[in-house]
Amino acid sequence: MTERTKNPLWGGRFEGGPAALFEAFGHSLDADIKLWRQDIEGSKAHAKMLGAQGIITSEEADALAKGLDQVASEIEAGTFEWSEALEDVHMNIEARLREIVPEAGGKLHTGRSRNDQVATDLRLWVRAALERCAEGVREVQRAFLIQAEQGHDALMPGFTHLQIAQPVTYAHHCLAYVEMLERDRARLLAARDHLNVSPLGAAALAGTPHPIDREATAKALGFERPMTNSLDAVSARDFCLEAAAAASICGVTLSRYAEEVIVFASSPFSYWKPSESFSTGSSIMPQKRNPDAAELIRAKVGRLAGAFTALTLQTKGLTLAYAKDMQETKPVTMDALEELEKTLLVCAGMVAEMGINPDRMDEDANKGFATATDLADSLAADGVAFRDAHDIVGRLVGLCEKEGCLLSDAPEEKALQISPLLTKERLQRLTPKASIEAKRRTGTFPDSREEVRRWRERVG
Amino acid sequence: MTERTKNPLWGGRFEGGPAALFEAFGHSLDADIKLWRQDIEGSKAHAKMLGAQGIITSEEADALAKGLDQVASEIEAGTFEWSEALEDVHMNIEARLREIVPEAGGKLHTGRSRNDQVATDLRLWVRAALERCAEGVREVQRAFLIQAEQGHDALMPGFTHLQIAQPVTYAHHCLAYVEMLERDRARLLAARDHLNVSPLGAAALAGTPHPIDREATAKALGFERPMTNSLDAVSARDFCLEAAAAASICGVTLSRYAEEVIVFASSPFSYWKPSESFSTGSSIMPQKRNPDAAELIRAKVGRLAGAFTALTLQTKGLTLAYAKDMQETKPVTMDALEELEKTLLVCAGMVAEMGINPDRMDEDANKGFATATDLADSLAADGVAFRDAHDIVGRLVGLCEKEGCLLSDAPEEKALQISPLLTKERLQRLTPKASIEAKRRTGTFPDSREEVRRWRERVG
Amino acid sequence: MTERTKNPLWGGRFEGGPAALFEAFGHSLDADIKLWRQDIEGSKAHAKMLGAQGIITSEEADALAKGLDQVASEIEAGTFEWSEALEDVHMNIEARLREIVPEAGGKLHTGRSRNDQVATDLRLWVRAALERCAEGVREVQRAFLIQAEQGHDALMPGFTHLQIAQPVTYAHHCLAYVEMLERDRARLLAARDHLNVSPLGAAALAGTPHPIDREATAKALGFERPMTNSLDAVSARDFCLEAAAAASICGVTLSRYAEEVIVFASSPFSYWKPSESFSTGSSIMPQKRNPDAAELIRAKVGRLAGAFTALTLQTKGLTLAYAKDMQETKPVTMDALEELEKTLLVCAGMVAEMGINPDRMDEDANKGFATATDLADSLAADGVAFRDAHDIVGRLVGLCEKEGCLLSDAPEEKALQISPLLTKERLQRLTPKASIEAKRRTGTFPDSREEVRRWRERVG
Amino acid sequence: MTERTKNPLWGGRFEGGPAALFEAFGHSLDADIKLWRQDIEGSKAHAKMLGAQGIITSEEADALAKGLDQVASEIEAGTFEWSEALEDVHMNIEARLREIVPEAGGKLHTGRSRNDQVATDLRLWVRAALERCAEGVREVQRAFLIQAEQGHDALMPGFTHLQIAQPVTYAHHCLAYVEMLERDRARLLAARDHLNVSPLGAAALAGTPHPIDREATAKALGFERPMTNSLDAVSARDFCLEAAAAASICGVTLSRYAEEVIVFASSPFSYWKPSESFSTGSSIMPQKRNPDAAELIRAKVGRLAGAFTALTLQTKGLTLAYAKDMQETKPVTMDALEELEKTLLVCAGMVAEMGINPDRMDEDANKGFATATDLADSLAADGVAFRDAHDIVGRLVGLCEKEGCLLSDAPEEKALQISPLLTKERLQRLTPKASIEAKRRTGTFPDSREEVRRWRERVG
Repeated sequence: MTERTKNPLWGGRFEGGPAALFEAFGHSLDADIKLWRQDIEGSKAHAKMLGAQGIITSEEADALAKGLDQVASEIEAGTFEWSEALEDVHMNIEARLREIVPEAGGKLHTGRSRNDQVATDLRLWVRAALERCAEGVREVQRAFLIQAEQGHDALMPGFTHLQIAQPVTYAHHCLAYVEMLERDRARLLAARDHLNVSPLGAAALAGTPHPIDREATAKALGFERPMTNSLDAVSARDFCLEAAAAASICGVTLSRYAEEVIVFASSPFSYWKPSESFSTGSSIMPQKRNPDAAELIRAKVGRLAGAFTALTLQTKGLTLAYAKDMQETKPVTMDALEELEKTLLVCAGMVAEMGINPDRMDEDANKGFATATDLADSLAADGVAFRDAHDIVGRLVGLCEKEGCLLSDAPEEKALQISPLLTKERLQRLTPKASIEAKRRTGTFPDSREEVRRWRERVG
Repeated sequence: MTERTKNPLWGGRFEGGPAALFEAFGHSLDADIKLWRQDIEGSKAHAKMLGAQGIITSEEADALAKGLDQVASEIEAGTFEWSEALEDVHMNIEARLREIVPEAGGKLHTGRSRNDQVATDLRLWVRAALERCAEGVREVQRAFLIQAEQGHDALMPGFTHLQIAQPVTYAHHCLAYVEMLERDRARLLAARDHLNVSPLGAAALAGTPHPIDREATAKALGFERPMTNSLDAVSARDFCLEAAAAASICGVTLSRYAEEVIVFASSPFSYWKPSESFSTGSSIMPQKRNPDAAELIRAKVGRLAGAFTALTLQTKGLTLAYAKDMQETKPVTMDALEELEKTLLVCAGMVAEMGINPDRMDEDANKGFATATDLADSLAADGVAFRDAHDIVGRLVGLCEKEGCLLSDAPEEKALQISPLLTKERLQRLTPKASIEAKRRTGTFPDSREEVRRWRERVG
Repeated sequence: MTERTKNPLWGGRFEGGPAALFEAFGHSLDADIKLWRQDIEGSKAHAKMLGAQGIITSEEADALAKGLDQVASEIEAGTFEWSEALEDVHMNIEARLREIVPEAGGKLHTGRSRNDQVATDLRLWVRAALERCAEGVREVQRAFLIQAEQGHDALMPGFTHLQIAQPVTYAHHCLAYVEMLERDRARLLAARDHLNVSPLGAAALAGTPHPIDREATAKALGFERPMTNSLDAVSARDFCLEAAAAASICGVTLSRYAEEVIVFASSPFSYWKPSESFSTGSSIMPQKRNPDAAELIRAKVGRLAGAFTALTLQTKGLTLAYAKDMQETKPVTMDALEELEKTLLVCAGMVAEMGINPDRMDEDANKGFATATDLADSLAADGVAFRDAHDIVGRLVGLCEKEGCLLSDAPEEKALQISPLLTKERLQRLTPKASIEAKRRTGTFPDSREEVRRWRERVG
Repeated sequence: MTERTKNPLWGGRFEGGPAALFEAFGHSLDADIKLWRQDIEGSKAHAKMLGAQGIITSEEADALAKGLDQVASEIEAGTFEWSEALEDVHMNIEARLREIVPEAGGKLHTGRSRNDQVATDLRLWVRAALERCAEGVREVQRAFLIQAEQGHDALMPGFTHLQIAQPVTYAHHCLAYVEMLERDRARLLAARDHLNVSPLGAAALAGTPHPIDREATAKALGFERPMTNSLDAVSARDFCLEAAAAASICGVTLSRYAEEVIVFASSPFSYWKPSESFSTGSSIMPQKRNPDAAELIRAKVGRLAGAFTALTLQTKGLTLAYAKDMQETKPVTMDALEELEKTLLVCAGMVAEMGINPDRMDEDANKGFATATDLADSLAADGVAFRDAHDIVGRLVGLCEKEGCLLSDAPEEKALQISPLLTKERLQRLTPKASIEAKRRTGTFPDSREEVRRWRERVG
């Protein structure tokens, strides 16, 4: 094996040489410093178990517990000195621990390896982050319920293709998002449940000859059970992908609402108006309100789906068991979940404080012949074949467009010429409110008061 | 409103004019023709309910049921004439139905809209596809169990960084994939469960004034319950994203195994060899076996994750309720699930027939001082501090490398000079088998016979 | 090497056995049938060169040329019988050729391999597709010029954050897209130029001992030069990624315009209206115009970016030289470019026929105090410090909002109280037209007539 | 317009209220602090032009230049106090400038807006980063040339499907990467050229009435020309997508080499060995060398392609002109280019110092009947039909496999029984070296010495 010892590249921009270059590239402290709580929690569980199993003495176990608590206090207090030379959060904590309790410190790693330790820490972190995100979803739902309450009777045009289609209520519209978010939450929590098993005890990749108690550490850390297969335990990162996917899909939901805010707050619409807290003004146009929060929320799905792409690429084709590629999954996963959490909180605030303009929504709900379908339905209910009904209504709409009037105000005589069924009485029933009422009676347009009550019980 | 009537572009490559151009772009028959079973199933449930509710007569309901069955037979038989002019699968089926039962045919659409119909069909299709994929995962698991059974005692080097690290068994390696796949399956089935609610009754976006029975159609189609909010029912496509994400993550698992096949079948490794059925030969080199199936499986995650990217982009920022953008989600979702299903079946076949070379794996499991960690563990168990133990072992490894021998064959005297604890007896225990045995005793390296039995009960 | 001969999986859903299963999975005919023209073109160039070099006789060369022409005619005529058993387009064509000219047919492959042949065909196909897309971009640009011409003087509000900001013209807005598209075109053509080198002669991966003339085939096929390195020639697929990236970025441009169409065609805006040819109506609401084409265009970027994700995953980490994974890149690349081409043509048609409502745009260009910035600029030009100018204008805007009037109609006395500089004369200059005129004079708002002329010369 | 004034959410985890929450979400200082040099450079060019045009006095212009230099010094020196409350880098610098030169400071923004300022800064930053990456590519190429030089005559097996296919040289293999990287560099520089136009002067979105000189600022900042259309100038972010795409495709190239390092450094291969500087050892196994750098390089494409996905999502469907969504493009674009630059430097170091094991490569180049194709070619050259030649060689390979010998050592008599053409002399020519030599004569396997010389002239 020939090995080059002199590299003509060194010098110039490669100053510091290869060691410095690769060290800066290879260390992961920036990203994994966020794991410190999980790292200490995991080590405490492991140390306690080592003591209980007699692998170390109970004095050593106690010393480790106290030492780890001290490290935690130092980090909390900001007095801990992080060293990039120690490469990652685990080595930083271990090194400090061995200063505090030199002897016991050297035994903490018995029956454990960096590989199962990292996997454990990351699972604990992602679990907590998913729980915070699920709670963030709840906040957004609560905010939509606040909005629904103030808009039970506020009409709003329902759109297809962003064209006015049929009348709905503002509350109904808000409740659609409560439903969507409930599924987002279910996915975040499913991701949480799927990851909640303990890699501890897999050691480097093949288990350990030390008589450890995997059930005990799993239980202490709130895991359901130890993972069965050691190779799997250290090389699985599917939980990162699942978390990122759930976050990303939730980001799509939020982007849809954000888009609506931007469009509906635009002056030709003027349906909604974000509060001052969630928009930015202009020194020159004090009345102007740019929906900056909504725009940032709309964009955020980019980073979340980008994370999924990144993680998929990072883990594609990795042979078992541990590979250094996995280090790259940490910052990506953590960034995605942190971004989602922040986005949810901002969205909750923005939704809760959203101002609405019932007059503009009402005005448009009356436009666009939005009750034409109701008329066709009422003709069909009286036995007119579906296609014939459509034809009759189409002609009436044409008439009203020419006359510049609503369907309910169609000139009686001309309407009856189109069909004798187009009586004044039938037409006068064609208001948005009547349209909604008719659908409420069939249960296909639920009563929003009832819905809000039901959701309140569920989301608090 | 000024509208141009003459477009100078028409003519030349725009021959056929705008109508032809947009028609070809806008129709979705290619993709949604696959929905025909679901469309007929949904229509039958709807028709039956209309009859039961008295919205149509029971004669009409019967006529519709028979008519739909006839359409199904024609499609099955290949005699159905699909028309692109009719744009999509729904219109094709409806048009034919109205030829067969003209009167009743015109009433099928009562209380229903294309919007809730499409959403229903697609949910039914995706549900079935996810179930087939979940069953496909089972097949791959069964194939890995077949492999595990033939390799309970076959040694294999365990790798980290693709460097030989510690000895494992071939069965243990195979069982890692069984575990990974179980989580993939859980995700596919979670996606299935999350989507299993009925959009029927939401009509275009706001419900219907016809007295339909949503519970009845939901039940007839195997859905858990009707979706509550009509706007949500017609505009939700999160289930496509969740299905694609689950498929993609499963694709990553398969890519990892495929990569191993490619590397381990390469001649310097020669651990594994795909059967003739899943590899291709060369007319010129009859002994050569290219792992084509593995390469295709490895690549497949591309299309699956590409689908997730596509779906995220397609649904980002869509205002409620229906938008034509959603049409684009159909081919992407369906392609992803069909590709995954095929990939799983091919993978199952490839795994089941994988040939192994126990001698080569055994040879390498003895290389690379793979039991050095065991030696350190045994010293630690006898009270040597972890770091000291590492130091001792490092020096012994250096000695053996120089001597060109295994740890278990280290020259006694020189070993004892490094540490008096390095007795011949201790060193002779340093075989791969002993290493594994020691970990089996602690339960951290499970007995593969027991594992296979446990899995067999579960997967059949 | 132990090899399993019986696979308990076979039977049931695995009917047909492994051979059938893998064959269906492994063949690529569906995708690469589109390469037939390129395959024949490449073979003709190769055959001619073989003859010229004396590697085959000139009679054989002629026979091959005629035979290949016949195959081409058969394919054109639809009489060619494609066989899936022959796996791909290359084998299908070769097999038929050998029926037509058995002896010479067997020599066509001299000095060539499937690996350099596939790479050549794909480069030729992608090159042509990129050229068609670049021409498609031109069509869209031409369509925007048609629009610009009808809107030189039509005012339109310029937006930031979808809030009315400053007045612009419709022509200026259209010309922005002409600029954006010019960059998209540059990227498509850069991708074309970067790929235009010939892999022919690399053979399987290491060149050939036959005395071929690589320059000749490269020239015959319109390539700039032969690729230098044989390993690179057969394993490079970066050109697929670059093509997909360029397509995807162009898709983003189109999605931005499509979004504007959807928003601006919505009834509260009513600025634009897609023609009947590029929208769909409703039988029941004849006046309704759903912007279906725009929605499909908006969604299309999904598939394009999905292709980039897929290709990146498929080629990540591939060892040199050929790997079967590359087969998966073909359908993905081809689908993306075909979709882009269609999307461009539909977009060109939609743009060319777009109807506009100058009154509505004019109305809104006068709203929102869109000339407030102009007022501040005019004060600054008269020496008022920037921030003070902003303050003065802010107070005037507040006044006008209260009074419900435009800035140009602000009550004189009250305005002068805010600042003596707010003279009637100054305020009356605050019209959208004057605002634009002032910027035209500085050259920062170009004259659209001049711009259209400049572009016309360029794009035809 | 009803606006909610009390939000029940505030309090608890929403402590600090909406203002604090949104402020933390909305500020972009973390990301755009990296733009400070570009921001000052742009402002200096703008100030100088304002002076030259007489829009401000020459004293004011001088004061601004000096003030901006002072700000730059303070930032360099680390004494500048960044304030998150000032939201972004532009406001921080402007605020400090106005402390230093209060009067002139207030005039810097004349004829400019945040929108064209941000676009300018980002273009300058991305331009510089792309140039650094292009230079980084050169470093990797230089490193490969170093390797090629030490391996001109070192044989290496060429692979297809990671199966030994035909013999090549180590230099040839390295030179393949030099070619691939040259295309990567071309893409990075194309992205640079495409973005090199100046948005300055577009102001907020519609130009400015101040008589600025756009040519002058464009020239001062090294741009080719001002961008023509103001709406386009402030809303274009396609250059970010193009840069990310080029970075990502380059990342794929690097991942392919990294994969080879990992596989070829694995002990069954033992072809290559990363130097100590670019690998990590194990305290317990001193001889072990984990290819950590290669693994990180392999993974890095994840983040790069993730950036492309993110940017595509962020800019999809954005209406003109500026939208806050664009803020999200900054950190993503900058992160991708910074990561690529670092990855290239580490890769250059790793390549330059790569150790090779010529014996192992030579050994395998002789295995696998890698010259069988050469034999078929030589038979074909003597007039044997291609398929017949394949058949003869296939039988000879079968014979040699049974005999356990190389083709060149096939037992003469048995060989001649297969075909009289299989003479001893012909077979003895079947060495890897002869195989390569034959292809060198046809120019299809270039002389690596010549290639290295050619590249040296180009890359330095």
